[in-house]
Amino acid sequence: MKILVLGGDGYLGWPTALYLSRRGHEVSVVDNFARRQYDFEMGVDTLVPIVQLQRRVRAWKEVSGLEVTTYVGDLTDPAFVSHVLASTAPEAVVHFAEQRSAPYSMIDQKHAVYTQVNNVVGTLNLLYAIAEQDRDIHLVKLGTMGEYGTPNIDIEEGFIEITHRGRTDVLPYPKQPGSFYHLSKVHDSANIMFACRIWGLRATDLNQGIVYGQETEETVLHPDLATRFDYDGVFGTVLNRFCVQAVIGHPLTVYGTGGQTRGMLNILDTLACVGLAVEHPADAGEYRVFNQFTESFSVADMAAMVARVHGSAEVTNVPAPRVEKESHYYRAAHTKLLDLGLVPHLLTDDVVRSLLGVAERYRDRVNPEAIRPTVNWRQTTNRLVTSGGPDMHDLPEPDDAGNARVAERA
Amino acid sequence: MKILVLGGDGYLGWPTALYLSRRGHEVSVVDNFARRQYDFEMGVDTLVPIVQLQRRVRAWKEVSGLEVTTYVGDLTDPAFVSHVLASTAPEAVVHFAEQRSAPYSMIDQKHAVYTQVNNVVGTLNLLYAIAEQDRDIHLVKLGTMGEYGTPNIDIEEGFIEITHRGRTDVLPYPKQPGSFYHLSKVHDSANIMFACRIWGLRATDLNQGIVYGQETEETVLHPDLATRFDYDGVFGTVLNRFCVQAVIGHPLTVYGTGGQTRGMLNILDTLACVGLAVEHPADAGEYRVFNQFTESFSVADMAAMVARVHGSAEVTNVPAPRVEKESHYYRAAHTKLLDLGLVPHLLTDDVVRSLLGVAERYRDRVNPEAIRPTVNWRQTTNRLVTSGGPDMHDLPEPDDAGNARVAERA
Repeated sequence: MKILVLGGDGYLGWPTALYLSRRGHEVSVVDNFARRQYDFEMGVDTLVPIVQLQRRVRAWKEVSGLEVTTYVGDLTDPAFVSHVLASTAPEAVVHFAEQRSAPYSMIDQKHAVYTQVNNVVGTLNLLYAIAEQDRDIHLVKLGTMGEYGTPNIDIEEGFIEITHRGRTDVLPYPKQPGSFYHLSKVHDSANIMFACRIWGLRATDLNQGIVYGQETEETVLHPDLATRFDYDGVFGTVLNRFCVQAVIGHPLTVYGTGGQTRGMLNILDTLACVGLAVEHPADAGEYRVFNQFTESFSVADMAAMVARVHGSAEVTNVPAPRVEKESHYYRAAHTKLLDLGLVPHLLTDDVVRSLLGVAERYRDRVNPEAIRPTVNWRQTTNRLVTSGGPDMHDLPEPDDAGNARVAERA
Repeated sequence: MKILVLGGDGYLGWPTALYLSRRGHEVSVVDNFARRQYDFEMGVDTLVPIVQLQRRVRAWKEVSGLEVTTYVGDLTDPAFVSHVLASTAPEAVVHFAEQRSAPYSMIDQKHAVYTQVNNVVGTLNLLYAIAEQDRDIHLVKLGTMGEYGTPNIDIEEGFIEITHRGRTDVLPYPKQPGSFYHLSKVHDSANIMFACRIWGLRATDLNQGIVYGQETEETVLHPDLATRFDYDGVFGTVLNRFCVQAVIGHPLTVYGTGGQTRGMLNILDTLACVGLAVEHPADAGEYRVFNQFTESFSVADMAAMVARVHGSAEVTNVPAPRVEKESHYYRAAHTKLLDLGLVPHLLTDDVVRSLLGVAERYRDRVNPEAIRPTVNWRQTTNRLVTSGGPDMHDLPEPDDAGNARVAERA
């Protein structure tokens, strides 16, 4: 199958491209390297070093004999989107190409607007290009479980049957996203659902949980095939951060009470889910939603697990920078991908051990200053950024012992 | 009260500014004249001539002795938004300043992207400016009943209590908007609700029905105070179009079977509703939604009413250019504004007669070519537009007798 992977240079886009290539698909990759640019802007870096896309593709050719074609450009440029679609004539488009950090979107007005415009316009351009060129192309779009927020009822997969004043309808599941980034994904979902309705497009929206893991069957075949490992306060995910904190001897910093519960999944399952979605396309006109996660954990649970597996890490609670419930009901359906044949890789002690191993291996590259939560949801101007503004050192001193120790170390 | 009216040069923004000024508020008006620009782009015009904003404001000063301050600029420019807010220090901001035509948003990729970026970014900039300068400012935002679509259950005002698998929560009402424009309003609503939650802002979202009427107590005081009357296929609303068709002896063109039912309201009630919202502000952190309409009618009902009051107009059915249900359940709550004291002006024969009177008075200005539905939801490129593209004459010939007659007349 001819498959286009948008955002194919990113943490998940790259391993997904390799996975699909290895399964015999003809894969092309699109990226504008925005993710690498954010690192320059924030002064942070992936813990595991990664090489440039062109070298990655060469290494893949070396180890597998398989070609991956690359296109460099921006989805907010409609001419570029049309060109790539026309050149590749894909049967499926896997769309990872969005700004995907909630804290990044909450830095200030500029970053909120950038995130929503970048994500919404890129997807709109893609929908138009598909509608114009070939309405049979299956769009597999990465969404997020964060679109739902934490309602006090069970979360379903995209739609819910509601009985109200004696009548019943199946309606889009109500969304309560928790950042301007999560909102951008909700906007995308609504736009895609509409495009399927009016143009008869086929789309699968993968509402993904938080992904952990850094190695896949393909990326381990050559050092140049490695994917990112982000642990910083803006792009890092919580399990990575805990592992890095553990190996540098820093207490695992839990935001608030740590009761925030989220769906999680192994990077291997992300690949498998995307593969299943691509290989079982949506019907013409169908907009379907799969909740893509395998287990739910609270932040406190994860910290406890990392501390236990590591053996000597402590856990500390720091003020929550986000506006979110620290204790809430959470039960979300996730059967559709299992029905298609997903066999989950669960978060075992061995998996935590392997993540701690990655962190340990690159211990020397850890920048402790990067771990601190620097973006506060309640502020409209988070003073960590870029051109002309004050830098991180102008931030108020951290008010908890854990963070203060990190600052001294830096 | 100091009130900022954004989009205060538009069909409803201008009469609202006058209404609030007359009620003793200190009103400032912001506009970028995008609405006048769309007329140039489409080659259409308001049936009732309107003068420039500066002359409108002078006429108001003449007849009322009251000052209205004007600011010319674009909400997508964050520096402009900050400047206006800082200069006026309003207690309430009434936000009409969005691209508000569904067909306009469906012309092509460029117009879809423009509509969503213009509307979403303008509102985001406003939310940031309010959060930065004064979180007590009450945002009164114009939304649309079209955000809900036509679900098979009763529509509530913004939120719905859902009982699901034995648990209950009050959640945002599920939305099924029917155009990229309507989607932009849904995106706005989600962004505003979030801003209220994280920053404690106060907001009222007025999900307005389709407005009819052209004269208000204030606009009739001087010819230079008149507001727009749009009847064209892109910006016109259905009742205006029927009245214009009736007076030029053209059959009233009902899209499809005309079973599409929508909430409607008199322009006088728009003014009263905005006034009630402003004078009864939302609480700090509260995001509330009022459904702002007074009666529901099907398109066929309205055509029949205009035909009956006019006396000699015929009704004809033409292929529906939109993708929407032509026959559906429709019952929507609208009690919150009544509870605040709204006394509706209903759609009586006298009101239809007065609209026919407006159309009759400016009969010579009618451009019959402008009435045709030129934007088809199923197409991604509607060939009616602008620079370099083919013009309206390249459209396929109308396939119904009614439209063909119009074309001959033009």
